[in-house]
Amino acid sequence: MIKNHFNKEIRKLISASEWLIVRKEYKPEENLAYESLFGLANGKMGNRAAFAEGGNKKTLPANYIHGVFDKSEAFMRELVNTPNWIDLKMYFLREPFGIGDKKELNNFISVLDLKKGILFRSYIITTESGRKTKIEKIKFLSRSNKSLAAIRTYITPLNYGGLFEFENRIDATITNFADFPRFKVKHLNTLELNNLQGKGAFVKSQTRDFGLEIGTAVSVDVKKNTGEDCLKSKHFRTFGEIACEFFDLEIAENETVMIDKLAAITTERETSNVYQSCLEKINKFKKVGFKEELNSHIKEYNQLWEKADLVIEGDSKMQQALRYNIFQLMSTPSPEDNQTNIGAKLLHGEEYGGHAFWDTELFVLPFFNWVFPNIAQNLVEYRYNLLEKAKENAEINGYQGAKYPWESADTGEEECPAWTIEPDGTCYRCYVADYEHHVTAAVTMGMVNYVKTTDDQEFMKNKGIYILVETAKFWLSRLTFNEEKDFYEILKVTGPDEWHEPVDNNAYTNHLAKWNIDYALEKLRKYKKENEDFYQKIIKNCELELGFEQKWQKISQKIYTVAEQGLIEQFEGYFNLEDVLIKKWDENKMPLMPKELKGKPKNEISILKQADVIMLMFLLENKFDLETQRLNFDYYEKRTLHRSSLSPSIHCLMGLRVGDTKRAYDYLERSAYVDLDNNQGNTREGIHAASAGGSWQAVVFGYCGMKIAKDGMLSFEPNLPTNWSKVKYSITWKGQLIDVLIKKDKIDLSYRKRVPTKKIKYKFKDEIKFVN
Amino acid sequence: MIKNHFNKEIRKLISASEWLIVRKEYKPEENLAYESLFGLANGKMGNRAAFAEGGNKKTLPANYIHGVFDKSEAFMRELVNTPNWIDLKMYFLREPFGIGDKKELNNFISVLDLKKGILFRSYIITTESGRKTKIEKIKFLSRSNKSLAAIRTYITPLNYGGLFEFENRIDATITNFADFPRFKVKHLNTLELNNLQGKGAFVKSQTRDFGLEIGTAVSVDVKKNTGEDCLKSKHFRTFGEIACEFFDLEIAENETVMIDKLAAITTERETSNVYQSCLEKINKFKKVGFKEELNSHIKEYNQLWEKADLVIEGDSKMQQALRYNIFQLMSTPSPEDNQTNIGAKLLHGEEYGGHAFWDTELFVLPFFNWVFPNIAQNLVEYRYNLLEKAKENAEINGYQGAKYPWESADTGEEECPAWTIEPDGTCYRCYVADYEHHVTAAVTMGMVNYVKTTDDQEFMKNKGIYILVETAKFWLSRLTFNEEKDFYEILKVTGPDEWHEPVDNNAYTNHLAKWNIDYALEKLRKYKKENEDFYQKIIKNCELELGFEQKWQKISQKIYTVAEQGLIEQFEGYFNLEDVLIKKWDENKMPLMPKELKGKPKNEISILKQADVIMLMFLLENKFDLETQRLNFDYYEKRTLHRSSLSPSIHCLMGLRVGDTKRAYDYLERSAYVDLDNNQGNTREGIHAASAGGSWQAVVFGYCGMKIAKDGMLSFEPNLPTNWSKVKYSITWKGQLIDVLIKKDKIDLSYRKRVPTKKIKYKFKDEIKFVN
Repeated sequence: MIKNHFNKEIRKLISASEWLIVRKEYKPEENLAYESLFGLANGKMGNRAAFAEGGNKKTLPANYIHGVFDKSEAFMRELVNTPNWIDLKMYFLREPFGIGDKKELNNFISVLDLKKGILFRSYIITTESGRKTKIEKIKFLSRSNKSLAAIRTYITPLNYGGLFEFENRIDATITNFADFPRFKVKHLNTLELNNLQGKGAFVKSQTRDFGLEIGTAVSVDVKKNTGEDCLKSKHFRTFGEIACEFFDLEIAENETVMIDKLAAITTERETSNVYQSCLEKINKFKKVGFKEELNSHIKEYNQLWEKADLVIEGDSKMQQALRYNIFQLMSTPSPEDNQTNIGAKLLHGEEYGGHAFWDTELFVLPFFNWVFPNIAQNLVEYRYNLLEKAKENAEINGYQGAKYPWESADTGEEECPAWTIEPDGTCYRCYVADYEHHVTAAVTMGMVNYVKTTDDQEFMKNKGIYILVETAKFWLSRLTFNEEKDFYEILKVTGPDEWHEPVDNNAYTNHLAKWNIDYALEKLRKYKKENEDFYQKIIKNCELELGFEQKWQKISQKIYTVAEQGLIEQFEGYFNLEDVLIKKWDENKMPLMPKELKGKPKNEISILKQADVIMLMFLLENKFDLETQRLNFDYYEKRTLHRSSLSPSIHCLMGLRVGDTKRAYDYLERSAYVDLDNNQGNTREGIHAASAGGSWQAVVFGYCGMKIAKDGMLSFEPNLPTNWSKVKYSITWKGQLIDVLIKKDKIDLSYRKRVPTKKIKYKFKDEIKFVN
Repeated sequence: MIKNHFNKEIRKLISASEWLIVRKEYKPEENLAYESLFGLANGKMGNRAAFAEGGNKKTLPANYIHGVFDKSEAFMRELVNTPNWIDLKMYFLREPFGIGDKKELNNFISVLDLKKGILFRSYIITTESGRKTKIEKIKFLSRSNKSLAAIRTYITPLNYGGLFEFENRIDATITNFADFPRFKVKHLNTLELNNLQGKGAFVKSQTRDFGLEIGTAVSVDVKKNTGEDCLKSKHFRTFGEIACEFFDLEIAENETVMIDKLAAITTERETSNVYQSCLEKINKFKKVGFKEELNSHIKEYNQLWEKADLVIEGDSKMQQALRYNIFQLMSTPSPEDNQTNIGAKLLHGEEYGGHAFWDTELFVLPFFNWVFPNIAQNLVEYRYNLLEKAKENAEINGYQGAKYPWESADTGEEECPAWTIEPDGTCYRCYVADYEHHVTAAVTMGMVNYVKTTDDQEFMKNKGIYILVETAKFWLSRLTFNEEKDFYEILKVTGPDEWHEPVDNNAYTNHLAKWNIDYALEKLRKYKKENEDFYQKIIKNCELELGFEQKWQKISQKIYTVAEQGLIEQFEGYFNLEDVLIKKWDENKMPLMPKELKGKPKNEISILKQADVIMLMFLLENKFDLETQRLNFDYYEKRTLHRSSLSPSIHCLMGLRVGDTKRAYDYLERSAYVDLDNNQGNTREGIHAASAGGSWQAVVFGYCGMKIAKDGMLSFEPNLPTNWSKVKYSITWKGQLIDVLIKKDKIDLSYRKRVPTKKIKYKFKDEIKFVN
């Protein structure tokens, strides 16, 4: 029993076992992956699950804060590792109690409570001299007050007792890329350290490029489990960039002491005086106390889960994985902040610098559209807020309209570096930002889907329409006319499959460009019909010339989209590449590069990192008949290695759509377990946001067959795996919170609250029904 | 063969094996002791023998600089740990090569070359992934340019090859008491980090209390053993208080690359612009190169050894130990600086804060008097320079004249804290500075011996006489008159034996006080006779009242000195203490506390930490007849535990004097091997300066029987152990450098350079001879 590892208080707190992700054994080599996997986020910041005791060499403690970016000597503007507030070092007769790189930890258990957003830990540390100490921990990043975080530590010496010494520290010596000597960079200057008016320790830091201030404050409350106060003495010290409260306690053998480390983290993004703000927050936190704050936090998580839970009956492993993915997805973005987005690795690791990619709009946003439309709104507003920068970005690159950056941080500038440095120090020219343009269509499509799902026409009118028109303008300027063939084409472009870069007339990009232009035209025509004044305002704001409609229409009709039927060539010349089919799969059922092709330049062979045509058909379902989809799925699946974590969920979805269900579940597993099983081997770098969102889509849009039909009606064609007896989840459909129950051959939709005036229709296997 | 561990170049460099101290095996638990033991000093700074690779948890890297003290939150003003310049971190594919806490080091050897003042190392590091790399190191702190230091590293990958990454760092995050959470303190602020005009890395630090600036600069020169330059790229970075040159190199399997890390360390003690000074020094160092600087350094050491060597034939272990002690003694003090002294732990560790004690004058100074009179002069001038502070110190404590502090740093203020904190956090009142006054007599006696040996009458006239008179005045004011008994006494005082504190009429202190007064009187009378004007000047400068002579004389005659014959009571009441004789000795032949007395308050029993009466007789030989000395030696030896490292050498000397030779050699071993065998278990805290000096005295004054006889003539009464066939050493006697050869029953003294005009007499077993 998991609970048996913990004391009475934790037992009361800990959720039922189906809500728990459990690390049962301490293997130091797994530390980095678990630091991501058990990382917590609360919509403002993310904190990796490092050990507060320190002592282990392989660790990347980090606290990332939404919107706190810096470049300095890094090759891109990246999410800054801010001061480490979790540090609590412990000594007995000067002997440190550390988490070592050997197996010093016994009776180890670490539990991520998905229901409540709490990380629990329990273990016995045995020091070199043989002292055994039971340590139990409760860690949370408050969802109710997002600047607050806390760790409660229970300490029980098992075979000794006496005077313990502690260091309650804020460590501002932290860097990014701490274990990467070539790239290691310190993004913060330390401006001030103080004792927080005797309450604890405070560090004021500042990003080096933009001078954004960050305040980090910590304080400890110490009690015996009898409730008795037992702090003996406390001294504030600074060691360069480390602020430290030294304190000591008498603890007798088998007695338990409880140390609550409370932290407040603020930035100039929300306050002009980070010190004052930290001080007030810590004072309030100390008054409220660990337990009460934790209770508010738990309440918030309950409310989140009331909307976000997805129950799969009959498949407990997949159930757990889906909940894990939902947990990290919903914990990360800010419900209040439309200036920040969701990094490709969430707030859990440094890879990709915390930048937003097309992953947001096509993989992650759908979850929020359907489950947390308020957060979805922030995400689409983020793109609107950076529209001007996207216009600059188009201009810089010689285009018109708005070109969204391949990688986006806080300023909206292109953050994908033109030159990057390989681990061996060689510089190489990175063409991704130059050629991979499809993100601009993805941003638009994400926004359009947001409006379709939420029916937020206000957003479309005031903001979305400008994204739509400006991106259309970009694509129009991006096209070149081929006189010989009498069509518009896109030359030198890269689709999602980055192994072929650049190519001409990438089917994915050309189709999406056309879709983008057509959708803009459609919307403009609709507005024109509805309200000429409003239409004219847009025309004016977007500086559209007289007769643009006819011109756009004409161009769009002549965009070379490769094909809409039959086998679609991923790009011009793809069918001429050396072609060998995948014939082997690894023990995780993932395809292996055909032996004959190993070592060949990737752009000379037909094997794909991910399949553009499959992705295209997934997105523009109505463009392609089922037979075409089936044909292409069959063709490309045999040539796709899924080396992108974005690929498997789409193959699950498309397999289900074309009726090739035999491998769909394998793909779902691959996607849903990507971090839980660390099956790409890079969980240490953060959590795969796109896989998390893709897995949710695979279950809801794939197995549950939910979609918005051509006619705009909500529609269901479930196709549950044989072992799934039911799936339950909730959606917010055009403002109404609806509980969805899917069984093998029946479904039930009901309003969370009775809404007698509204009658929402939906289709189930082409039969029209009403929400109950 | 030791040399076989090293490459050709090192083999050529390394001295004959009798000059080498060898650590043959890497046991991580021995690291801290070896960091002291193999610590290097060059008369300006001391650098502990930490590993430049880092990675081990138990390490206290330190670079101490003479005269760089700071208090801040510490409980005393202490020698500051200045930025760590040795750091050279190495990576291959991001994997760090570190010195771990397990046995990652194979073929390990570390060699301290006493002859040349070089630390050699060779080992194979095996990383977690199985990469094997041979590392060879040459480290020296230049004796020819005392601001310079360097480490050459040879790197040979044995089973792999490719791109290596390095960090050439200055780490200014260092603290004092780094492994002592309660006392840990950072004495330096970091003011500036820069790239030294592209030459390397520079850090400017500043002591927090007095604002003294310290500059630390490093630079690397990199070459293949073929001579070919192989630096691929280099980037300067700062990480808070760490200045870092990142660089990378291609090294093929079994190829060797040589990295010379050159360092320059300057302080505001010698330059007003530490940056400029560092820059110039590094530029020059780079021009001169590692090898040429090393050659100059070796030449300096040759010259030192020409004066300092002490050859013992027939006892190679003791030979080695004496050389080790001489090596550390002569390497530490500055030959140029009369503002600094020698800390009780040399420049090799943090214990006692780098403070000078009576250890300097009575244990260490005699070596310098006889071997390096120029350094001896600095040491006595240090006390003269701080005479005014000693006068203030007397006044503060309600006395007259000059009272030297028990612990002395740079300012001459009392640095022995009135309150100290125990490791358990309890504060206790430390009475040492209040009661242990004998240091003032020791300072005087050391100075007097300096003048006797060097015949530096100029010093005595201009400086020494003031020390003499002012300390005499102190003792006169320290005495109180006992009307009942009609004598002057010293109440509430502590002698060298700190286990009885405070006591009344400590024989040691009373005798030395009397000696101090009498010697001052004698000297003044001599000057009066020789030169009345000069005498009057002293009288005036010292504000001596008319008739002081008679008054001093009268008081001195009535000082209660306990006894001069028979069994001398260490202090009033000592003979009434509970008395049990020592009956057991440990495996190192050192006495154990009698079982019956264990746990009893030390001031209630007769067992001693060290024997005051023995020390007294050692110093004032002529005061006590041999029978008295014998009687007291016999009595007190049975009651002395030698818990002070100062005790054994004196017992060796006194045993030899009274003819009780049976244990003398045991005592010499105890003293001479104190750090080599870590027989007090605290070598990690630094090198025992007093033991080193005491061991030299035990050999030269004890076994070789050299002394200045009553009549001022140099005199020899050798008493070599049976296995010693001869002892050779050199002395500077009244300005003449004389080689001394002692055999069982003959001796030979010869001028190093022929000095035909001088005819120096000496006595050998009461027979007058002349130096050849």
